[in-house]
Amino acid sequence: MIRVIFTTILYLQCWMCCCFAKSHPHSHVESLNVWPKPVKLWWAHPKATILSADFTIKCPRNHPHLVAATDRYQILIKSEHHVPLVNPEVVVSTSCHLKVLQIKVADLTASLQHGVDESYNLTIPASGAGTAVLAAKTVWGAMRGLETFSQLVWVGGTQFQRLLIPVGLDIWDSPIFAHRGLLLDTSRNYYGVKDILRTISAMSWNKLNVFHWHITDSHSFPLLLPSDPDLAIKGSYGPFMQYTPADVAEIIQFGFDHGVRVIPEIDSPAHTGSWAGAHPEIVTCAGMFWWPAESEWADRLASEPGSGQLNPLHPKTYQVMKKVIKDIVSLFPDPFYHSGGDEVIPGCWTTDPIIQAFLSNYSSAHNGLSHLLQIFINSTLPYVTSHNKTSIYWEDVLLDSTIKVEDLSTLPPEHTILQTWNGGSQNTKRIVSSGYRTIVSSADYYYLDCGHGSFVGNDSQYNRPPGTDQGNGGSWCGPFKTWQLIYNYDITYGLTQEEKKLVLGGEVALWSEQADPTVLDSRLWPRASALAEALWSGNRDDTGKKRYAEATDRLNEWRYRMVRRGVRAEPIQPLWCARNPGMCNTVHASG
Amino acid sequence: MIRVIFTTILYLQCWMCCCFAKSHPHSHVESLNVWPKPVKLWWAHPKATILSADFTIKCPRNHPHLVAATDRYQILIKSEHHVPLVNPEVVVSTSCHLKVLQIKVADLTASLQHGVDESYNLTIPASGAGTAVLAAKTVWGAMRGLETFSQLVWVGGTQFQRLLIPVGLDIWDSPIFAHRGLLLDTSRNYYGVKDILRTISAMSWNKLNVFHWHITDSHSFPLLLPSDPDLAIKGSYGPFMQYTPADVAEIIQFGFDHGVRVIPEIDSPAHTGSWAGAHPEIVTCAGMFWWPAESEWADRLASEPGSGQLNPLHPKTYQVMKKVIKDIVSLFPDPFYHSGGDEVIPGCWTTDPIIQAFLSNYSSAHNGLSHLLQIFINSTLPYVTSHNKTSIYWEDVLLDSTIKVEDLSTLPPEHTILQTWNGGSQNTKRIVSSGYRTIVSSADYYYLDCGHGSFVGNDSQYNRPPGTDQGNGGSWCGPFKTWQLIYNYDITYGLTQEEKKLVLGGEVALWSEQADPTVLDSRLWPRASALAEALWSGNRDDTGKKRYAEATDRLNEWRYRMVRRGVRAEPIQPLWCARNPGMCNTVHASG
Repeated sequence: MIRVIFTTILYLQCWMCCCFAKSHPHSHVESLNVWPKPVKLWWAHPKATILSADFTIKCPRNHPHLVAATDRYQILIKSEHHVPLVNPEVVVSTSCHLKVLQIKVADLTASLQHGVDESYNLTIPASGAGTAVLAAKTVWGAMRGLETFSQLVWVGGTQFQRLLIPVGLDIWDSPIFAHRGLLLDTSRNYYGVKDILRTISAMSWNKLNVFHWHITDSHSFPLLLPSDPDLAIKGSYGPFMQYTPADVAEIIQFGFDHGVRVIPEIDSPAHTGSWAGAHPEIVTCAGMFWWPAESEWADRLASEPGSGQLNPLHPKTYQVMKKVIKDIVSLFPDPFYHSGGDEVIPGCWTTDPIIQAFLSNYSSAHNGLSHLLQIFINSTLPYVTSHNKTSIYWEDVLLDSTIKVEDLSTLPPEHTILQTWNGGSQNTKRIVSSGYRTIVSSADYYYLDCGHGSFVGNDSQYNRPPGTDQGNGGSWCGPFKTWQLIYNYDITYGLTQEEKKLVLGGEVALWSEQADPTVLDSRLWPRASALAEALWSGNRDDTGKKRYAEATDRLNEWRYRMVRRGVRAEPIQPLWCARNPGMCNTVHASG
Repeated sequence: MIRVIFTTILYLQCWMCCCFAKSHPHSHVESLNVWPKPVKLWWAHPKATILSADFTIKCPRNHPHLVAATDRYQILIKSEHHVPLVNPEVVVSTSCHLKVLQIKVADLTASLQHGVDESYNLTIPASGAGTAVLAAKTVWGAMRGLETFSQLVWVGGTQFQRLLIPVGLDIWDSPIFAHRGLLLDTSRNYYGVKDILRTISAMSWNKLNVFHWHITDSHSFPLLLPSDPDLAIKGSYGPFMQYTPADVAEIIQFGFDHGVRVIPEIDSPAHTGSWAGAHPEIVTCAGMFWWPAESEWADRLASEPGSGQLNPLHPKTYQVMKKVIKDIVSLFPDPFYHSGGDEVIPGCWTTDPIIQAFLSNYSSAHNGLSHLLQIFINSTLPYVTSHNKTSIYWEDVLLDSTIKVEDLSTLPPEHTILQTWNGGSQNTKRIVSSGYRTIVSSADYYYLDCGHGSFVGNDSQYNRPPGTDQGNGGSWCGPFKTWQLIYNYDITYGLTQEEKKLVLGGEVALWSEQADPTVLDSRLWPRASALAEALWSGNRDDTGKKRYAEATDRLNEWRYRMVRRGVRAEPIQPLWCARNPGMCNTVHASG
């Protein structure tokens, strides 16, 4: 009896000391910094408690990826010690410490694929003495919730610097778009496995879930394929700039541990100059100068330096493709498979005599060339489909003005998805109105390499008298895409409700003509974070108004946390601006 | 006798084995990669020898900075092991190894200041068995020659990988412009001492010789001044984001060891918001919003967020300025002293009642405001001059349309230099035609921060429907300044021969609103290298033709060497381009 009374008194004391005084009149919710911003966040009173030194996360232990994530977040949360740029104004209880975060997963069997449920509900009791609960439909939702929880922890307190966590908090969260990705081109320049893993880590912090790996291109073929190792032996930049099957397995497993899918792209039939080292006979115009002197742009051999396209009329092409596809589907478990299909250039194919003979049967060369592409796709896509993969192609196969598939039975919508890169929202419309699912990567908004000039040498456009209009610095897709441009882009702009259903999501893309490991982090972050929030919880507030203004302060805070976690994201403002919220705004509408 | 014969035979053998076969018909000189390209380089035959394992550099030991440089290069040369992207085609002798580089300096007393002789002559004998000689007028020229020598060493050889050095080489080199600089803004965001030292190292590799340290601005005051420590205590970003006198001394000595001058800039009277923490009474409009709602641009308080200007009518202003100047001239030995003077904004001064009263005496507010600037300069410049310093001001004090010095006796040309940033070559012309010396930093070419958007928050210009013209991404000075734009800029364009004499040189500038240590290296390099060569040996070949085409391949090589040396310079092309010289060029003139 006495024990009961004593315990009751203890609990009462705990409840009382955790029962805080006056509530805050201002929007204290704004002082919580989670990126992407959760869909729904209730925090009635600005109160926080201390994270116990014994804090543990409890989860079902029979899902290895969830266990890996939980263990990882446990370490991160207790070691990160993030000091916010602006201290949240909270009332802190020092008596009740949060000891446990309990993870509950409804369906442990749901696999990581497009459209898997990523929602979660996170509740931290007001008393702080209870157990915080993270409930999710799947382990992947649980991972999203773990990331959110980690961002709620900060170092603060007036008397002692402690790890604090808000209490009386209720978050419900779920993404608007299921496909939230990042493309990395590892062919124009090479990135080590460590760089890729670090990128996937940062993606998971931003709740990005698709790593679109543009592995090969004309400039190098770094992937060491078991059934055709010559492709990498002859086509890579060197033995220390390759990816072995073990590297691939490591990256994929790392992806699973982080809730990030890895979608391989083996671009073809164009962008295959690097295949010519191993198989010279199947690559047309390999090693030829990309745009010969005294020829028109229309007669170029490639859209940029580095020529070479697979010959759809050479039988060996399909022997090689079959081996490549077989290895890829074996190495990469994701149900999506990216086949490329962009920038097929007439001038390259027409260097081949067999193709010339073939084309002579056509009154219009364009028809013949389009037929060649159709032959290529008809000879490769079914094989990919037979492995239960959905194929992604770049928009060109449908939308190119010169070479495209005319007979759309070649591209069954149930087995193919088209990824945009030109024409902004117009091309999105063209694709979905044709009944195809789409992934949006409009260069005008999502190409992270734009605005840095072009890499082409001997370019006289830079040699003009002072005062000449510099245009956009020579980049084909300039200007530079600022985080604000990315954040404000509505990828379903101008679509009907039905058409919007076919937009799976979007991807930012880092093409590597002028990027490699020295600039990887700063070129990606925090601009990819802008897409991450726009596709997770949108770019509008609860009233439907664009929220880029308040996003600035939150992105500042988020950028500093990412840097502290080891990713060299670039700064978006002077530190002074973060410390003086609102003072670096403009209150004038820009023209 | 036998001994003589034997010795003679030995020498003959050495001479014979070092006497190489056929000469190379092509321009083998192009395979030597030195950046900046030396003015004169003679290499009759493409021959190289091995750098001896006992290789030493001998120099006069009584000049501590030369000794430091020599010791540094000795270590670098023997440890760098640079493998070129394209192997130079040379005939290598394995019998005679180069053992000694002898440094000869004509005048060991010449101090590091503007216009000091930086020429050098480097000869490596054809036999390779002798002594290479580096002769220079001053130790600073010797340092330039040491850097050149280090870039001539590479790892090569067919049978064994050895350190090779070309022989039969004769280089004469000297800079076109004496002032070749780089500005770093350490106020908008902070950089640690290590970052500054690394930058100075990289500058010396590029033969850049002026580190223009824009230490303070409205956003932070990081410099801990002995006679007024409160400025930093109250105005810095924090105790771990300051520069102590010891830090400054370390940076300056490091500069001397690298032949790099350190010129301090304490910007005033504008850009002084950060002074208000320590001295609120002397800073007008401190802490006020930079551009109030419903006011015109002409009525803004500052040109960017972060307001505050020193009050020329407050007596305490000059008490503080005197202490600041006194400390600066004591800490910084360079004969040049940068006082800033840019972007003085009417709207900030006119918030002050005393200034309002002062201006009421003028029929034109502009006259009164200009007079205020004149008062400020008349009250500060003579004190700087009395310390035997030459003052540098931004062009605004002469050229601003609103607030400028009317009575030019305030700015005696023998004591003042004006630095450009607006109006490209036009403002250069305006300055030198007025009889002033100038340093060129035209934003249109040399501002490295341009093209990354702007840092201002709540900026609606980014929230426009897809398809809206993105302009130059919102950056006031966009687009991004590519290395080619920088390389091709002729800073004396349109000047008469007499006027050209007044152009001391130029500086690239990294303003840090959106830059900090995570992006420092990639934002600076290799674009600053482009200025480095254009100002050292120019941007034209021996026939007077612009040489940006061949510069691309050399810059690629140079960028990889800098990365290997520890500076994370950004890439300018795919590695494939460097490995396949010419294949990434365009042979079409751009419109």
